[in-house]
Amino acid sequence: MSKIKVGVAGYGVIGQRLADGVALQGDMELVGVADLAPTLSIRALKEKGMPYDLYLVDGADQKSFDALSIPTAGSFSDLIGKVDVMLDSAPGGVGVKNKVLYEKAGVKAIFQGGEANSVADVFFHGYANYEKGLGADFLKLTSCNTTGLIRSVDCLDRRFGLERVAITIIRRVADPGDYHRGLTNALQMDKAPSHQALDLMTIMPHIEATGILVHTPVTHGHIITVVAHGKNGKITREQALEAFKEHDRIRVVSIGEGFLGNASFFRYARDLGNPRGDMYEIGLWEDGIVESGDDIMYAINIPQESVTIPETIDGIRACMNIQPSSAYATAATNGYLGLGKWK
Amino acid sequence: MSKIKVGVAGYGVIGQRLADGVALQGDMELVGVADLAPTLSIRALKEKGMPYDLYLVDGADQKSFDALSIPTAGSFSDLIGKVDVMLDSAPGGVGVKNKVLYEKAGVKAIFQGGEANSVADVFFHGYANYEKGLGADFLKLTSCNTTGLIRSVDCLDRRFGLERVAITIIRRVADPGDYHRGLTNALQMDKAPSHQALDLMTIMPHIEATGILVHTPVTHGHIITVVAHGKNGKITREQALEAFKEHDRIRVVSIGEGFLGNASFFRYARDLGNPRGDMYEIGLWEDGIVESGDDIMYAINIPQESVTIPETIDGIRACMNIQPSSAYATAATNGYLGLGKWK
Amino acid sequence: MSKIKVGVAGYGVIGQRLADGVALQGDMELVGVADLAPTLSIRALKEKGMPYDLYLVDGADQKSFDALSIPTAGSFSDLIGKVDVMLDSAPGGVGVKNKVLYEKAGVKAIFQGGEANSVADVFFHGYANYEKGLGADFLKLTSCNTTGLIRSVDCLDRRFGLERVAITIIRRVADPGDYHRGLTNALQMDKAPSHQALDLMTIMPHIEATGILVHTPVTHGHIITVVAHGKNGKITREQALEAFKEHDRIRVVSIGEGFLGNASFFRYARDLGNPRGDMYEIGLWEDGIVESGDDIMYAINIPQESVTIPETIDGIRACMNIQPSSAYATAATNGYLGLGKWK
Amino acid sequence: MSKIKVGVAGYGVIGQRLADGVALQGDMELVGVADLAPTLSIRALKEKGMPYDLYLVDGADQKSFDALSIPTAGSFSDLIGKVDVMLDSAPGGVGVKNKVLYEKAGVKAIFQGGEANSVADVFFHGYANYEKGLGADFLKLTSCNTTGLIRSVDCLDRRFGLERVAITIIRRVADPGDYHRGLTNALQMDKAPSHQALDLMTIMPHIEATGILVHTPVTHGHIITVVAHGKNGKITREQALEAFKEHDRIRVVSIGEGFLGNASFFRYARDLGNPRGDMYEIGLWEDGIVESGDDIMYAINIPQESVTIPETIDGIRACMNIQPSSAYATAATNGYLGLGKWK
Repeated sequence: MSKIKVGVAGYGVIGQRLADGVALQGDMELVGVADLAPTLSIRALKEKGMPYDLYLVDGADQKSFDALSIPTAGSFSDLIGKVDVMLDSAPGGVGVKNKVLYEKAGVKAIFQGGEANSVADVFFHGYANYEKGLGADFLKLTSCNTTGLIRSVDCLDRRFGLERVAITIIRRVADPGDYHRGLTNALQMDKAPSHQALDLMTIMPHIEATGILVHTPVTHGHIITVVAHGKNGKITREQALEAFKEHDRIRVVSIGEGFLGNASFFRYARDLGNPRGDMYEIGLWEDGIVESGDDIMYAINIPQESVTIPETIDGIRACMNIQPSSAYATAATNGYLGLGKWK
Repeated sequence: MSKIKVGVAGYGVIGQRLADGVALQGDMELVGVADLAPTLSIRALKEKGMPYDLYLVDGADQKSFDALSIPTAGSFSDLIGKVDVMLDSAPGGVGVKNKVLYEKAGVKAIFQGGEANSVADVFFHGYANYEKGLGADFLKLTSCNTTGLIRSVDCLDRRFGLERVAITIIRRVADPGDYHRGLTNALQMDKAPSHQALDLMTIMPHIEATGILVHTPVTHGHIITVVAHGKNGKITREQALEAFKEHDRIRVVSIGEGFLGNASFFRYARDLGNPRGDMYEIGLWEDGIVESGDDIMYAINIPQESVTIPETIDGIRACMNIQPSSAYATAATNGYLGLGKWK
Repeated sequence: MSKIKVGVAGYGVIGQRLADGVALQGDMELVGVADLAPTLSIRALKEKGMPYDLYLVDGADQKSFDALSIPTAGSFSDLIGKVDVMLDSAPGGVGVKNKVLYEKAGVKAIFQGGEANSVADVFFHGYANYEKGLGADFLKLTSCNTTGLIRSVDCLDRRFGLERVAITIIRRVADPGDYHRGLTNALQMDKAPSHQALDLMTIMPHIEATGILVHTPVTHGHIITVVAHGKNGKITREQALEAFKEHDRIRVVSIGEGFLGNASFFRYARDLGNPRGDMYEIGLWEDGIVESGDDIMYAINIPQESVTIPETIDGIRACMNIQPSSAYATAATNGYLGLGKWK
Repeated sequence: MSKIKVGVAGYGVIGQRLADGVALQGDMELVGVADLAPTLSIRALKEKGMPYDLYLVDGADQKSFDALSIPTAGSFSDLIGKVDVMLDSAPGGVGVKNKVLYEKAGVKAIFQGGEANSVADVFFHGYANYEKGLGADFLKLTSCNTTGLIRSVDCLDRRFGLERVAITIIRRVADPGDYHRGLTNALQMDKAPSHQALDLMTIMPHIEATGILVHTPVTHGHIITVVAHGKNGKITREQALEAFKEHDRIRVVSIGEGFLGNASFFRYARDLGNPRGDMYEIGLWEDGIVESGDDIMYAINIPQESVTIPETIDGIRACMNIQPSSAYATAATNGYLGLGKWK
């Protein structure tokens, strides 16, 4: 069977990681990446020896790349013409314009969370609604918080059945290296309910969700607390823990062993030698799970830069009809990414 | 009726505010404050012209005060000998030693949250268990987070009856001016359940409480989200809001009007001209209240430096038997502090 | 002699403090303040009982003030018609439009650092070039960093003569309560030389100045290090210290006594009971002065919200020709503001 | 020629990087690393498949490693018995105790900056005083700030001759993943002169150095500004820039190309795929160099976790007498680490 040909539009924080993730899939081929300007990420690509071919989108200034001796492989249209699926991680609002090009070329595309839902046929999560994505032309991934949140909620729902969740999102405001969207010595509230709760209900309409989001001035990982109510009676701490431990995209840790907070995951992933200090798994604290009446309450850590990569790759499997179900698709993605190996 | 004579041990972040708060009470007299060393706060007291008499605790170096021309009024024992009640805001662990002096002198005392519960006869909150403090010799106040949390929980419990709460505490790690206990670019988890939930159950044993605490690198105000479950059916958003708005120590605000986060309360209190930019009220966001099934979820802001002052003054009223019930005592305290005037 | 009538345009961070500062001047009268919308600061003004009359600028929605029962005293033109001098602390770019109104009304005005230099006849500092402002119609104040920096540079220059300075500005990025311009876990460089060095040379053209500015994610006070080269040989540490100690707008402190950093000044000013925790003086660390060859190196703390208030009031004295020289004018301003009293 | 056998004591932030750096040297062999407890870093070593043998120091609890199935290769004495040189990156104060073991075994050792200078025969820098380390038994490396600072100062001194420097250190307070030593919303001063200036004079006694250090609440890279005075007249901006560009451990960048601050280097190193996002080079901003009279002023970025690795490896070359001079030794180290390749 020939490999699925994949391109990436926008070689920024997410685009780089999509490219790396796709390159690890044995049944996919990364054709190239496209961008507009010689950003630091593109300069780093050059310094690394161009492991990926670079295509230039409309409006790019070829001379600025030539001046830096950055080789280019063609135009954005050239790239689109060579792929089966485009992963679009262009800045929010650009994806909807790119879609016109994808449609014209008859190429499927998966958009990231920054685009409007209307850009896609299906608002997608690899575990929670994989089947909806089968054969679809255009998917949109859930945002980083929602992707990680749904992993944990789906994990409990699948095993025990859930009726509702109330979440508190302690959101990091910027990525390492960002200077344009910080917050200094303040916690900022969003109007409730948070969009992540609403998004969860779009993906999992049988669950009632609400929540409050607070922005915090840090760069490594969102933390979300979840109060979940089962639809079939009490879920105990032990039951929940067992379910979480079996999930290949949830890393169960403890404060006792040294995972003191969100920065510990980043530190650990750096120590592991993971490229960029990335981690695909959400973290879940074993000593952070408590019971509240019949409800179960727990806390997760969302590595915002890399968490959506596995589910996006699941999306390729769905829209290209490679695997017929979430179980097969996520197992394939996990295998190629090495997820669950630590257990 | 003669005024209640009050002294303050420890003129730090809390001690200063206790002194100021007592000085505003028409039925109390602030006899003086005691401390160990010419800290910045003591130097400021001097620069202000010594509005309060200063007594020196054992171990203080009189010469270091003389060198700065800071007048002193006597020893700690001298102060204890002149008062009916001591408010002990000495560093954690010192209060239990001071207690021996208070007992010997037959003086009542109210300790702050840093001391062990065992230091006092009653673990006290001005609204939730005022009656327990009546005539007691030694009270210990709840900590800043617990004090503010209980205000809101008691408000709902009193009106509607509550069965349980699940809280997420987004804790500020340091006060403005602290250099010794910061956190940089990290969110730090505590083992669950948080002590604030356990403390709430000590004060309000009829309510089941649990929760998760996350430390954040900011200095202005903790934010707590609360998921509360009534014991008599659903509490609606409108019902909860109405109850909160009537409370004199809860300031209901909205993101829409400009209260964007915890730093807005500090900014607003500074603009009000409040000494030190302090606010006695907790903040509660009108556009942060949501329903989750039959549960009600809301978010509060805790001004950690000043929130315990009113309840501590309530404690003076309780242990000195000035007012027979919470309703009378809190009304008196609120009146002298000007609480509720903004409505 | 009748009092100088002063108005303030823009009741924000700076405008509030200008109003308060003018209100303290025995020879001036604050006629009122003008603003556009019922911001938190305007709501606080209302809650305080309207100590200042409020005028509405063009474009303001009277109904939004009425809905909050905030009394208004008239239009911006009404205010302009009643004053001798307007202090314009409107957002950057608005001042130049307001200037047209001031010119038409024959009213003098002093603009803050956010406006372009071209808005004014004189770029002004109360110590370094007071005489240039005498009788001028339009002054523009130096920015907060430059104002504080020049105080210390002028102090040495006046006493010993300076040839050049090389500065490193460690800039706070936001004020307490700001959410729109933070920085998270990063130090950000500006292209060198920094504008503050260039501005210093505009005010003090006989001194060569250059420097590097680094933004830091904090809210309380810029810190600047200065390497200064005398034009008449070495300035010793003791000489510099003596000069600094005599200055009424420089507060000489030490790490040893507890001023550990920029937040200590804020903490101290709060403990002093200063409104909003403000301090007009720059801080200067006695144990931060060192000699480098014949150069002298020192560090200062700039309280960014309030540091320009005294020099702006000096500006009123200059443009209204109340005092003939910097020495008289600054002494008057200092007297009314209580500056130097701590010594 | 047989390879130099090297061990590492203390597998923490620095120890891990020393091990990785040594493992890249073609003429050295990393025998193993030693530590006390199954920290996150040791757990990561296990999860990576034990690329390095692990030895346990005295006091380690073998059972706690066995419980996690972490294989161990012997005792600390076993490791010492197999090596020619130990790199000691144990916590400050432990190295001096370890030295007794090294002396007994006749093994050379290189200590990191946390130890007292007295622990070693020579306080060492690979460029500035390499020859002093030749054949020495015990070296101590300069701290991260001093190591990076000296690189740039030595670079100018070697080319032009320097007489004195005045530095301002804008110090990061914690590493990513630290929770125990943060700072929140404050800039903290150290008493001047900073120890880095004094250390520089110990290494380069012909240069007069002084400086001021300010701690800032960030985790990625110190920034230092340097005002340098040549001993042979003016050094121009162009001359300095040319010298910096030729240095293999100085990466000259610009704000214009996207290096906006300290976090940009971290971001760039992550994008490069460098393990842990590390960078061995200091950064130097081309658009941050200015002239001040005859002085030259510039700003550098110090990647605190990894900057001392090359100079420590130079130290191995010095004490083992592999290369006779700094030029040969640093060229060898740079070659194996790939330094200078980007140019």
